[in-house]
Amino acid sequence: MAITRQACVALDDADALAALRDRFILPDNVIYLDGNSLGALPRHVPARMRDVVGTEWGIGLIRSWNDAGWIYAARRTAAKIAPLIGAGADEVTVADSTSVNLFKLLVAAMRLNSGRDVLLTQTGNFPTDTYIAQGVADLLGAEFRRVDPDVGSVLTALGPRVAVLAMSHVDYRTGRIHPMRRITAAAHAAGALMLWDLSHSAGALELELDEAGVDLAVGCGYKYLNGGPGAPAFAFVARRHLDRARHPLTGWFGHAEPFAFADDYAPAQGIDRVQCGTPAMLSLLALESALEIFDGVSLTALRAKSMALGNLFIGIADATLEGLGVAVASPREASARGSQVSLSHANGYAIIQALIANGIIGDFRAPDILRFGLAPLYVRFVDVFDTVETIGRILRTGEWNQPKFLSRKTVT
Amino acid sequence: MAITRQACVALDDADALAALRDRFILPDNVIYLDGNSLGALPRHVPARMRDVVGTEWGIGLIRSWNDAGWIYAARRTAAKIAPLIGAGADEVTVADSTSVNLFKLLVAAMRLNSGRDVLLTQTGNFPTDTYIAQGVADLLGAEFRRVDPDVGSVLTALGPRVAVLAMSHVDYRTGRIHPMRRITAAAHAAGALMLWDLSHSAGALELELDEAGVDLAVGCGYKYLNGGPGAPAFAFVARRHLDRARHPLTGWFGHAEPFAFADDYAPAQGIDRVQCGTPAMLSLLALESALEIFDGVSLTALRAKSMALGNLFIGIADATLEGLGVAVASPREASARGSQVSLSHANGYAIIQALIANGIIGDFRAPDILRFGLAPLYVRFVDVFDTVETIGRILRTGEWNQPKFLSRKTVT
Repeated sequence: MAITRQACVALDDADALAALRDRFILPDNVIYLDGNSLGALPRHVPARMRDVVGTEWGIGLIRSWNDAGWIYAARRTAAKIAPLIGAGADEVTVADSTSVNLFKLLVAAMRLNSGRDVLLTQTGNFPTDTYIAQGVADLLGAEFRRVDPDVGSVLTALGPRVAVLAMSHVDYRTGRIHPMRRITAAAHAAGALMLWDLSHSAGALELELDEAGVDLAVGCGYKYLNGGPGAPAFAFVARRHLDRARHPLTGWFGHAEPFAFADDYAPAQGIDRVQCGTPAMLSLLALESALEIFDGVSLTALRAKSMALGNLFIGIADATLEGLGVAVASPREASARGSQVSLSHANGYAIIQALIANGIIGDFRAPDILRFGLAPLYVRFVDVFDTVETIGRILRTGEWNQPKFLSRKTVT
Repeated sequence: MAITRQACVALDDADALAALRDRFILPDNVIYLDGNSLGALPRHVPARMRDVVGTEWGIGLIRSWNDAGWIYAARRTAAKIAPLIGAGADEVTVADSTSVNLFKLLVAAMRLNSGRDVLLTQTGNFPTDTYIAQGVADLLGAEFRRVDPDVGSVLTALGPRVAVLAMSHVDYRTGRIHPMRRITAAAHAAGALMLWDLSHSAGALELELDEAGVDLAVGCGYKYLNGGPGAPAFAFVARRHLDRARHPLTGWFGHAEPFAFADDYAPAQGIDRVQCGTPAMLSLLALESALEIFDGVSLTALRAKSMALGNLFIGIADATLEGLGVAVASPREASARGSQVSLSHANGYAIIQALIANGIIGDFRAPDILRFGLAPLYVRFVDVFDTVETIGRILRTGEWNQPKFLSRKTVT
């Protein structure tokens, strides 16, 4: 029995979270399934940014560091992210990019576990995670290793030389969730520290960093947190490590007294030491404002909707895309899948371009992944129906097979 | 013969650059002399940012990386900064903060000159420059040394172990210009690389990095470049070093093919390798837009006005502040002075607070410096007159000596 569009409309009608979509501005006639690359624009953010630019910068000028509270913007923003990741506000900060924060925390980890000389990460990690880990290993004269991210392989690879294991919680290509508690515990049992990249988790999954005993984490502000393009990233350091965590990006915003203009560096007490230079304030204040979206939202309900969206996607795909060269590349078990469904197809790039031409925005990840982010704050069940139906039509008609869809753009 | 206010009005009337002030939004009834901490808001930027937020992010969403050209925003912005600092567009990039860029380039310098193990900087450098240099030296096992920034002391301190000499071109406290050509040549003669921090120069002084043979430089986007609070910073690497310059913040935006999602890091050709993570796009696009202010502006004329403003400031101070405990802390010779005048007074903090209460915004720098930025794009001669006159009144009346002006705020 095929799932009908009407049934999906009914699911939206019954969805207790459906009204959250109104908290966003979304383009007309577009189905946006790329919130795992760039989250949508919260409806209240443009007015806030007008005030930030026109009033706080333009009229307040330098006084806004005090009078508009810019100086505490990173702390306020971190305090909003902390409950989304199961951490204390004293363990989270917002600064720089995910890449820069990963660098800081990987160096800090190697220093915390200084008797060991292997930096272990996973194959198939997000590119910048791998590159930064290579940069850190090269810098410190450590050995860079990577292992398949399945639990068995990870367990085997952990050993007496591994200082830190760095993994992404959700695989950006397939959406597979790597079991945080189990892998963290295994790392600890082997004497390693555990660092998670939560870029494809935070804001869409329930996370319990403290309960899972995670040591270090980083994550992105512009995906499910909707902070705007290139929004500052967050960094988490478990309370027990804060006093000893030392990274080398010792800029003035991480100083114990940034405005004392002291002669020598001295780290701030606690998580503030993970700061470095002056925050990119326009981007930071957009992220802070965007996070109001989560006010009053149950992460449990959000996660339930995300799983239902994914199950629906896979169900319709199974029912309607058979024989068209498509495979489901994401875990079928919702509990093992992040807030996305990925398909694979040999002509994935062109199919995504054809979908975009039809007003359906997903993205392509080499070599053959069609990736659909199911941001539960604003994606509807009917969006899922229309997307899978359009994929079927594009494949059956061969609509994807046109020169304009086959030539690569810079960013996909 | 005292300088009259009327004479200053006449100077403004005769000023060929006076109309540039209209390119900015400035608060009513405020004299803003803190553009060396946070530049004023260019008048056209709010409309641009409304478009960036509402249209490019909100409607374009992920497509804006291609369709709105976000992917090339850093290159476009760098190409606007390059002529302001006497560099080629292929030698400049815009990314991260000044602190992060300084870290990258100091590590790159130590690697370029790897037979040497001393990182030399100056006393009295801007705090974050010192702290970052300490972080780099600690990280690499190099020796951190600092020397008084006068030419004689620097010449003496250079020696066979110095890998890199890192200095600020303009002293943030006094505004003293350190002679770029002479010190760069001395560093080279001693086999060291030369890195300049141009944070208090770029956009206000004529700079000729290429002609001076400078190796590396960093600078701030939010002071005289008016890019907005915490705007991204720039980095310069001389063409001759680009192929070998290697820094450890090897994020995906510095990769040879960022969107190929390759397995291993490979640096981009040329200056793009100095990039790291995803740029803070809202902040970057504000800076890019702000730089239009310099379209058609002669840096020679701008510098001439800046020197005239400073000479006027000192002239009126000499004539009217005698016996009030004030000393001129900046060089009296305009050619040795950046675009600021600093005074010293034992009660500097309270005097600055009293000035702010009078609508005149300068800033205080410990221990006793009253700092007045004379951004020649928007500061008028009459502003200088009114400021010095008000300082005199505040000192003569003792208006500064009130509890509300004596208690320290977080940021001054």
